[in-house]
Amino acid sequence: MPDILHRTGIKSPSPNEAYKALATIEGLSGWWTDDTQGDSKVGGVITFRFGSQSSFDMKVLELEPGKRVLWQVLDGPAEWIGTKVGFDLEQDGDWTIVLFKHQGWKAPTESMHHCSTKWAVFMLSLKALVETGTGRPYPNDVRIDNWR
Amino acid sequence: MPDILHRTGIKSPSPNEAYKALATIEGLSGWWTDDTQGDSKVGGVITFRFGSQSSFDMKVLELEPGKRVLWQVLDGPAEWIGTKVGFDLEQDGDWTIVLFKHQGWKAPTESMHHCSTKWAVFMLSLKALVETGTGRPYPNDVRIDNWR
Repeated sequence: MPDILHRTGIKSPSPNEAYKALATIEGLSGWWTDDTQGDSKVGGVITFRFGSQSSFDMKVLELEPGKRVLWQVLDGPAEWIGTKVGFDLEQDGDWTIVLFKHQGWKAPTESMHHCSTKWAVFMLSLKALVETGTGRPYPNDVRIDNWR
Repeated sequence: MPDILHRTGIKSPSPNEAYKALATIEGLSGWWTDDTQGDSKVGGVITFRFGSQSSFDMKVLELEPGKRVLWQVLDGPAEWIGTKVGFDLEQDGDWTIVLFKHQGWKAPTESMHHCSTKWAVFMLSLKALVETGTGRPYPNDVRIDNWR
């Protein structure tokens, strides 16, 4: 099954700031969508809303401070349901490396192509948030195509 | 085998401009690397140089005006050799949709994660080139991590 993979490096002396941006509602609101709510603890459900365009409900499967965040999609587009979205952090000198994986896609659809590019844009938004204090979450995200 | 997939939409009344940016040396120089040389006809070899950082030699396998460009990697990083890089164009109203696929990776290495994000950045550079006349080819490309 095809996966979406990305690698981003964040200039940061420790992985703590990136972890906070991935493991708290406030952090997630700063780079993915400003309409992020819910319970970010293990077993909790986080709801991500993008106006009337799209929405995702994620169950938090794993949290390892400074190391790893893993979600499973409970609700959203049919193709997304049941897939897993994970972020693994590694510190390399003064860089926090984020290895992103969205796994469990059943087919390499056109929508999957779109999501791959869009995840890259949001990973750079995460990088900007941690490095500068300002990300580009929806509705200020970078438009990539006619689907947005 | 895992593939890198992306979808970008370019505001353009026909796919001709995007095709030119993918099928000519001048076009490629405008969004991937400014050091692009060689023969862009079918069977020709195009050399892409990124200073002392990396280089790729691509054989042009297929050219279908306004529709499709397909290359195979002849030389470059070991993981890249033999892989194929393709761009399929579809016109959807006033958008040219670019479906990108880099296929034939043997394993989902950390380098593949990096290349996936980097290709997204370059697809947005292609979009900028066609829409505004100015792309962000190397050495003016967007840095994504400690590997660049």
